[in-house]
Amino acid sequence: MGGQLSLRGGKRLRPALVYEAARLVTDEEVPGLDEVALSLELLQMHGLVHDDIIDDSPERPGGPSTYYAYRQEFPHDERTALALAILAGDLAAFLSVRVLLDGAASDEVKQAMLRVQLDTGAQTVAGQITDLERDSSPLPDEELLHCVTEFKSTRYSILAPLRLGLPAAGADLAADDERVLRYATALGIAGQMRNDYLDLSGEGGAGPGSDIRAGRRTYAVQAVLAATGGAERAVVEKALGDVDCPRESVDHIRDLARRHGIDARIRADIRRHAQTATAEAAAGTPHWRTEAVSFFTHLPHVVAHTVQ
Amino acid sequence: MGGQLSLRGGKRLRPALVYEAARLVTDEEVPGLDEVALSLELLQMHGLVHDDIIDDSPERPGGPSTYYAYRQEFPHDERTALALAILAGDLAAFLSVRVLLDGAASDEVKQAMLRVQLDTGAQTVAGQITDLERDSSPLPDEELLHCVTEFKSTRYSILAPLRLGLPAAGADLAADDERVLRYATALGIAGQMRNDYLDLSGEGGAGPGSDIRAGRRTYAVQAVLAATGGAERAVVEKALGDVDCPRESVDHIRDLARRHGIDARIRADIRRHAQTATAEAAAGTPHWRTEAVSFFTHLPHVVAHTVQ
Repeated sequence: MGGQLSLRGGKRLRPALVYEAARLVTDEEVPGLDEVALSLELLQMHGLVHDDIIDDSPERPGGPSTYYAYRQEFPHDERTALALAILAGDLAAFLSVRVLLDGAASDEVKQAMLRVQLDTGAQTVAGQITDLERDSSPLPDEELLHCVTEFKSTRYSILAPLRLGLPAAGADLAADDERVLRYATALGIAGQMRNDYLDLSGEGGAGPGSDIRAGRRTYAVQAVLAATGGAERAVVEKALGDVDCPRESVDHIRDLARRHGIDARIRADIRRHAQTATAEAAAGTPHWRTEAVSFFTHLPHVVAHTVQ
Repeated sequence: MGGQLSLRGGKRLRPALVYEAARLVTDEEVPGLDEVALSLELLQMHGLVHDDIIDDSPERPGGPSTYYAYRQEFPHDERTALALAILAGDLAAFLSVRVLLDGAASDEVKQAMLRVQLDTGAQTVAGQITDLERDSSPLPDEELLHCVTEFKSTRYSILAPLRLGLPAAGADLAADDERVLRYATALGIAGQMRNDYLDLSGEGGAGPGSDIRAGRRTYAVQAVLAATGGAERAVVEKALGDVDCPRESVDHIRDLARRHGIDARIRADIRRHAQTATAEAAAGTPHWRTEAVSFFTHLPHVVAHTVQ
């Protein structure tokens, strides 16, 4: 079940970052790198499976969520479906750490990687809790949104692959960790803003407005709330968290965003954060290998480009 | 929340086993043993918090379950309560492994302990799934019940404390592991049979019949099912899983058990498994320190004694 979830669709961003991080240090094969990539995929699977229970999400790209797949399998026994989904997520968490123990790294590197992985797991939980807090705030400030982004997604999607891939390849992480953190933070914000923008604009694959219907105070939703008042804001408040909110209301909110210049401002913010990330990666030369640096300087442009 | 859960009531069995396991090897202070005990308490907290969601249990001895404590805190938002309980359990799982990394053991011992802890976590999940399978079987055989006992409770409650405490104190676990496994298995079965017996007889603290009402095919329930037929068995089948099953039905089932000699047979089984465990511990002398061996030879008698 979880295996299917991990193997279908998806961008394989985390494994790619692990391998490219190692290539910043060496172009030779790095033993144990597959275990690191697998570990991160398992950690993500843990997060997704439990997240889909928390959000009551029926679907993932390519098929049902694990929770709903079990509900289909046990149509008359919702509690067994819930139990199996919780347990599947738990198993993925234990295995994501276990697989690192079997890698080829030295004891010292292995323990450093275990620390990264376990702290990442705990921090992602903290991010989920902050996310619940965000969505119960009438108007969360940008600092809280950045905090949710960093802990709920940046740390396991971008930072952990770099913090695992670099030492696996023999780098002294302490020397680069501040740069790596700044890079990941800026790229994470750009990526999250991109997702939030696409969900409101409808330019992404899915129909627009899923964040609004789920009551998520995203960067885009928060900007519309902050820019509007009176009757305009009431439209947004009414739609937030209304699972049956009609397409017309979502279109109306998108038009509001345009009228207040919010779409242009978010696009500019995305570009700005992407440029910050690119500059951090570029500053790694000549300490890091040039051809691998170009992957990391290029990646933020790819993120920013999807909204231009 | 979870902290309160861990600190209230309870027998502190796991920490006691950790410290006594170390005393099998040395009477000197063992650095890092507190981290081992804490790690096991956190692993148990992870299991209990998720288990109470799975079983929809409102209470733990001494107060509400974590899940229901959150439901009281968010009376109009059941999904937030569910989310926080899932996340609290996840956090305890990551921290239970993380805390071992900060212990004082050597790198080699630390990695051996991490292996034990992570395998225990994964095996307990497997035990939970087997438990769901047991309770959907009309008449599970004893082998399945032993399997549930071993994986759902023995491995983290008895085996893991021994497998962590011994190497923490400098023992070569490989030399003793088969004896340790036989001891834990026998003691785990005796303890589980004792719990199941007390739940049916009502001689324990709680009112009798909670296993019947929850539909659990325990050792005691399975023995009654296997010994009865026709109208007698129909009474048991009807009560199983009926949360509103009246006290009279439970008393009737208990009388059935007595009439078929099941209570005497379970007491004899408990004694037999306890004696097996005691013999395994005793055989550890003189390789193990005598005064610590006496703790382990004595413990099974304590378990068996509560039903005599």
